[in-house]
Amino acid sequence: MTVRIAVLGAGPSGLAQLRAFDAARRAGIEVPEIVCFEKQSDLGGMWNYTWRTGLDEHGEPVHASMYRYLWSNGPKECLEFADYSFEEHFGRPIASYPPRPVLRDYIMGRIERSGLRDQIRFNTAVHAVEYDEQTEKFSVTVRELEQDRLVTEEFDYVVVATGHFSTPNAPSFKGLNQFPGRVLHAHDFRDACEFAGKDLLLIGSSYSAEDIGTQCYKYGAKSITFSYRSAPMGYEWPEAFSERPLLERVEGNTAYFVDGSSCDVDAIILCTGYQHHFPFLPDELTLRTSNRLYPKGLYKGVFWIDNPKLIYLGMQDQYYTFNMFDAQAWLARDVILGRITLPDRAAMVADSEAWFAREEATEGVNDDIDFQAAYVRDLVDRTDYPDFAIEEVAEMFKQWMRDKSEGILDYRNKSYRSTITGTLAPLHHTPWMEAMDDSLEAFLRDSTPIEEQLGEPVELAEEPLRKRA
Amino acid sequence: MTVRIAVLGAGPSGLAQLRAFDAARRAGIEVPEIVCFEKQSDLGGMWNYTWRTGLDEHGEPVHASMYRYLWSNGPKECLEFADYSFEEHFGRPIASYPPRPVLRDYIMGRIERSGLRDQIRFNTAVHAVEYDEQTEKFSVTVRELEQDRLVTEEFDYVVVATGHFSTPNAPSFKGLNQFPGRVLHAHDFRDACEFAGKDLLLIGSSYSAEDIGTQCYKYGAKSITFSYRSAPMGYEWPEAFSERPLLERVEGNTAYFVDGSSCDVDAIILCTGYQHHFPFLPDELTLRTSNRLYPKGLYKGVFWIDNPKLIYLGMQDQYYTFNMFDAQAWLARDVILGRITLPDRAAMVADSEAWFAREEATEGVNDDIDFQAAYVRDLVDRTDYPDFAIEEVAEMFKQWMRDKSEGILDYRNKSYRSTITGTLAPLHHTPWMEAMDDSLEAFLRDSTPIEEQLGEPVELAEEPLRKRA
Repeated sequence: MTVRIAVLGAGPSGLAQLRAFDAARRAGIEVPEIVCFEKQSDLGGMWNYTWRTGLDEHGEPVHASMYRYLWSNGPKECLEFADYSFEEHFGRPIASYPPRPVLRDYIMGRIERSGLRDQIRFNTAVHAVEYDEQTEKFSVTVRELEQDRLVTEEFDYVVVATGHFSTPNAPSFKGLNQFPGRVLHAHDFRDACEFAGKDLLLIGSSYSAEDIGTQCYKYGAKSITFSYRSAPMGYEWPEAFSERPLLERVEGNTAYFVDGSSCDVDAIILCTGYQHHFPFLPDELTLRTSNRLYPKGLYKGVFWIDNPKLIYLGMQDQYYTFNMFDAQAWLARDVILGRITLPDRAAMVADSEAWFAREEATEGVNDDIDFQAAYVRDLVDRTDYPDFAIEEVAEMFKQWMRDKSEGILDYRNKSYRSTITGTLAPLHHTPWMEAMDDSLEAFLRDSTPIEEQLGEPVELAEEPLRKRA
Repeated sequence: MTVRIAVLGAGPSGLAQLRAFDAARRAGIEVPEIVCFEKQSDLGGMWNYTWRTGLDEHGEPVHASMYRYLWSNGPKECLEFADYSFEEHFGRPIASYPPRPVLRDYIMGRIERSGLRDQIRFNTAVHAVEYDEQTEKFSVTVRELEQDRLVTEEFDYVVVATGHFSTPNAPSFKGLNQFPGRVLHAHDFRDACEFAGKDLLLIGSSYSAEDIGTQCYKYGAKSITFSYRSAPMGYEWPEAFSERPLLERVEGNTAYFVDGSSCDVDAIILCTGYQHHFPFLPDELTLRTSNRLYPKGLYKGVFWIDNPKLIYLGMQDQYYTFNMFDAQAWLARDVILGRITLPDRAAMVADSEAWFAREEATEGVNDDIDFQAAYVRDLVDRTDYPDFAIEEVAEMFKQWMRDKSEGILDYRNKSYRSTITGTLAPLHHTPWMEAMDDSLEAFLRDSTPIEEQLGEPVELAEEPLRKRA
């Protein structure tokens, strides 16, 4: 009987799994039947923008946490697919920090050109997964949203690729129920223009706070106050910014912090992170973890040790992203295909605990980057996923951190060299603080043509892309 | 073996079911074991205000659609419990249009004084309900949110009292993904102050649009544009209001309507209603209906005809509310207790279809009110739930409609006479348009004392309540 694989989610991780099997198929290997279930009406996962917040048109929680005017907050060279470069997709080099629609186009392009869209059942939300010890199969129950009906099918493997940046972690603070303005979690943030002229309080000191704060400033917010639990971000902020310790309470529109200081604010944005949330899984199959580089219970960060036919992709905290998901998906593929045999349970536990302990021993960001580089290296060396100079990328991440330290509003103006093509990215036509239009068209319209980059003429797919400013 | 009943939800409908059985128990009748599952951390259902929108702290959809500064939009005399008057709860008459916290206090008071809180398992979300044809029992799987674990128990009856004003019906419009401002559904509306000085577009022409529009105007919005699909509300609006036909598209911050007109707006609120949504039920037990006075498939608007041990409370479109839920719960109770026997399936279908057809034949609002009065009368006459002059209440609803026509910003200043106590409500100390504080304390602080109303001194529970303005 045909082996069947359910892939839950058609975002970067789920699509990596489709691509991995497709690569094997193109190499002449017989591959299992794959069904990818996707709640949204298109592929792309988190990279699909929607104006919706809360629940979608079918009453399902909105997956996307993306907002308008989101530019990549890391160099694209750090997340480039090893088997599909940006240059291959766009037909020429592009700048290192593209806005969301450009990255989405890139993610989708690899799948569209592989003809893998047919493997995805859109508008289909996973409702329940059960494992039957007798038959050794999973039953996956999905809700077909447009028909509003439940359908159950059996699978030999389940790949959970539903992400972990969709379910807000939203602590409460005293006085929020009486605060006379908007209170929202970063998950529901959509458009900085809404906050033009406002005094904003952002709770948190990680990527969401940093990026939403700078976006809002860029689009006209009057002031940005960050509130941190452990430590301030410590960037050299423009005058409109300030960092304060944790919010203690709100009275009217006045925020009081644990150091006794206070300020008046118009809106409060909780940039307090996300929960790993798998409401469709039974307790014994559910990964429970904080957002960390090596979650417990997963062999090679992927296989659920208690039942390795359940596979989790992309559940780590991330420096590496798309390429790490690929490395994971290639490994999962080879285990499913029997090209790699999993060790016994004790060995999986020991390996997993060793990685966990190694993460515990890291000190500081550079250590964390090296840890994840070593993890990705461990994966890539086990399969035929193309090497992408993982350690070189780690150094890029460290340079990126330095760039940010030197100028939190300027770091996106830097260029990085692709480890896949060797091309140094062209500078973008507009400094990030002045680039207000986040569309793909605006980003590509005036890009320096590839001729100038490479010193020779290159055929481009579409004429309009050759236009100069 | 003890009969067990699962009540899903501890809002007005679920609490009515607890109260109904408690009334029987107090009358010396042996009653089944009741377990009420409630997702929130307190009882009150929709009447609990929270600053949260979208997903709650456990990743569950937020139930509440209530907002700050919400005053009842109908006279409290129309929803008064027949077995627990406002006067009994507050110790004196109060005005006819209380703000949300006052109604919440009233709903909760009846339950607290009955000692029924122990029957409710808080922080417990219903995950799945199955019916076993063999054992003739329901298995109800809940997620204990604080322990994050699934628990399954068996029940003989399931009462679905989860409401139908929590899952937004949110159509999309062209251009929303590029609109440079906030777009939200009424479900996520929390605080009108956020919109002070703004030009607002509200899509819809029912209660949400009318009430959120007037609230925002009261709290300082610059202009309110309503967009209707079928017909305008037609009230005599102040100059800041306008009514336009359906939104056709948005370009930038300009809204274009199907009549070709346009206007610039800062925020868009979809007041486009709610979906009946029961993601925890299998297809064959799921009520699928629009928001109407008599949903199909329910005998007496309550019993799921295909399996009458599944009971739906409060799933109707509503003029009558709390007292109708009571009437339904009392009937459900008596059927469960065997005091009333359900007719055979054919008779239930015939009865249900007759009511359905009768609703279809209604013309206009007064007909609708009379229809629901007749429905409630049909319920109340079958049990010992105290009569509450149902037809007299119907006339109050008609008067209320007239009051609204005469002054959409003034109708809340009117007084109605309780059909339970016979007392005419005192006028409130402040006209609604000037009453900015929606707290229970502000509402009760300056109420006209009962002495003045009744002409004789009355013992009041708490001294501060006697204070005059």
